[in-house]
Amino acid sequence: METADVRQDIPLLEDLIYLDAASTTPTPIPVVEAMCDYFYKYNANTGRGAYSMAVKATQKMAESRGKVAGFINALPEEVVFTKNTTEAINIVAQGLSFKKGDSLVVPNIEHHSNFLPWLNLKKKGVDVRVVKADADGILDPSKIEDAVDHTTRLITLTHVSNALGSRQDVEEIGKIAEEKGSLYMVDAAQSVGHIKIDVKKMKADFVAFPGHKGTLGPVGTGFLYCNPEEALNLESTILGGGTVSDVSESGYVLEEFPARFEAGTPNIAGFIGLGASIDYIKKIGLEKIEKHSKSSTRLLYDSLVELKNVTCYGDPQNIYGIVSFNINNMNPHDVAKILDEVKGICVRSGYHCAIPAIKHVGAYEKGGTVRASLHYYNTLEEIQVLADTVEEIAKTFGD
Amino acid sequence: METADVRQDIPLLEDLIYLDAASTTPTPIPVVEAMCDYFYKYNANTGRGAYSMAVKATQKMAESRGKVAGFINALPEEVVFTKNTTEAINIVAQGLSFKKGDSLVVPNIEHHSNFLPWLNLKKKGVDVRVVKADADGILDPSKIEDAVDHTTRLITLTHVSNALGSRQDVEEIGKIAEEKGSLYMVDAAQSVGHIKIDVKKMKADFVAFPGHKGTLGPVGTGFLYCNPEEALNLESTILGGGTVSDVSESGYVLEEFPARFEAGTPNIAGFIGLGASIDYIKKIGLEKIEKHSKSSTRLLYDSLVELKNVTCYGDPQNIYGIVSFNINNMNPHDVAKILDEVKGICVRSGYHCAIPAIKHVGAYEKGGTVRASLHYYNTLEEIQVLADTVEEIAKTFGD
Repeated sequence: METADVRQDIPLLEDLIYLDAASTTPTPIPVVEAMCDYFYKYNANTGRGAYSMAVKATQKMAESRGKVAGFINALPEEVVFTKNTTEAINIVAQGLSFKKGDSLVVPNIEHHSNFLPWLNLKKKGVDVRVVKADADGILDPSKIEDAVDHTTRLITLTHVSNALGSRQDVEEIGKIAEEKGSLYMVDAAQSVGHIKIDVKKMKADFVAFPGHKGTLGPVGTGFLYCNPEEALNLESTILGGGTVSDVSESGYVLEEFPARFEAGTPNIAGFIGLGASIDYIKKIGLEKIEKHSKSSTRLLYDSLVELKNVTCYGDPQNIYGIVSFNINNMNPHDVAKILDEVKGICVRSGYHCAIPAIKHVGAYEKGGTVRASLHYYNTLEEIQVLADTVEEIAKTFGD
Repeated sequence: METADVRQDIPLLEDLIYLDAASTTPTPIPVVEAMCDYFYKYNANTGRGAYSMAVKATQKMAESRGKVAGFINALPEEVVFTKNTTEAINIVAQGLSFKKGDSLVVPNIEHHSNFLPWLNLKKKGVDVRVVKADADGILDPSKIEDAVDHTTRLITLTHVSNALGSRQDVEEIGKIAEEKGSLYMVDAAQSVGHIKIDVKKMKADFVAFPGHKGTLGPVGTGFLYCNPEEALNLESTILGGGTVSDVSESGYVLEEFPARFEAGTPNIAGFIGLGASIDYIKKIGLEKIEKHSKSSTRLLYDSLVELKNVTCYGDPQNIYGIVSFNINNMNPHDVAKILDEVKGICVRSGYHCAIPAIKHVGAYEKGGTVRASLHYYNTLEEIQVLADTVEEIAKTFGD
């Protein structure tokens, strides 16, 4: 499938220039149709229903889990379905039962969702070691290594920064975690569906994923990969229907993994949609998506950085799918509003739920950055329209 | 709208007899279309996006929150959107920061989702006082009152039992909680959309709701009502994007309620669908739904209880929308399978995620019960087909 084919499946792209993939991506028609198929034809709950429609819903969920797992080189029983990436990270932060005196290592440029759950462990007496990225938002693996000692239970970091687009060497850091004997978690919110993810190659124990970003699945879906050796050590803190095999007034017996982490009725329609979205991504081909992303990110960066009164963040060699920028003397929200008003261009503006990262690049007082983020459905022409419009705005207001 | 009109909006009802509303309800076409409208026309993330499509998505979510809140006589800022009822209950169980020596009161016939999160607090030294229902699954308010003392921080119970259909006097018990000065939580999983819910009249501090059952909204949605006086005392344990207004390496400032409990990208499509489902329920009219439910529950019970070799659970005066039964000498799963095979009747079978309730009525060794559960889309003819088919099965296998 070419970019033009994918655009046919996303009607809203006819009317506007959507450059906010890092926030969420529009869901293609075949994915929405897979959900409608559930709603109209077999809208039953999953689990242990004996009737055929419930069995079908359960099988379809299982198929989706298989597709999702295969996509990241994992097994279905290693994947927990969650409502979003944030929930996936919190499951690990709560489940690892950190104790006073434990330490963990986390960069200073994380999305709040991979920062607050760890920072919060300070209350328990955990030593939260915040490692600084370089000026471009890149982490030096040796700095991570230096922060690890015998008390370190976990190294966690984000594959691609949602605020800056900077891409980390997750495999190199995975080797360090393995050598040092600490657990390793990766937040793949901005990489899955954009870059080939192999959880085994990363040597990760836990990887958190959204369903609604790079994979083009629906909102309301995310997932967590757990290394099976560590999965059963995770405490499940959210309990309820589906998480136990027996209950009495004095106690309960937990279900196997991953059921013990999926309490209550799941977003069945959403996860069936997610399965369909994995099929869709495969139909395009991840290699093609990567190639498209590389060239269009480079074009985006290059065409913005050369403009007068415009500052781009990050190192063009090490950003992926995302370019954060500012126009001198302008609040990023005003820039985003004008881009929308004059050309229907949709970009995020502000702190991108990553205040520490924004502070790191000195953009906090400015009110954050303007962020353009791409996927395979974006054309080179759209990027050119953005660059031309930013140029106009910068000329008019940026001096 | 009459039952026939609603059936027009739920295509799958043409091909089968769906009697599993207590598990989930099929989503009517106008609700699915509201979701498709989001996916095809304004599939942006909510929050602080400056561009008009993101503003529209944010407004639509806010409208939905308003509809949902109004439906239970609450204000929008008293409602947290969750992925299901179970999550809503866990937010309260974790957020109340129970301490050693505190006690709480919970019945012995709860769904696991309103039992395990409380039982789990035993680990913290909380005295979990389990109050026994009567043989029909009805709670005597005076027994609840007797279990409360000065250590009791919370009384919690389910409005209508998912396993037995028994309906509790939640207003009477609310008065007891108020008099005794304890907090009060109601699990309205089986009542919202079936019975008029007024959280103020219940005098409840917390009420947990599904979006995908009585209200006919989509799977992947639920919500939590919090009394505003108590909301800010609840600790948010799931942190991430959207829950904070400022972050540094040493700490964070939480957002207002309910944002602090809604970490990460929400199921925007689902909550927009939920708003549409509230409109839909209002279009039918709750009074008509209640009337329909009362008469059809009674017909269902009466037509099953008179059959040879059939046992019905519960008191027909005090069950609502749900009838649990068994055929002598038969495993409930086998009954459900035959009902499906011979007449396309969809009923649940087993423990219904309520093992203590099933043990309470002595059906544990049998493998649980068969459960038929209704909504406005069910016809009297369908109930008759169920009764006739159960009669046939009981004649053939029940002796």
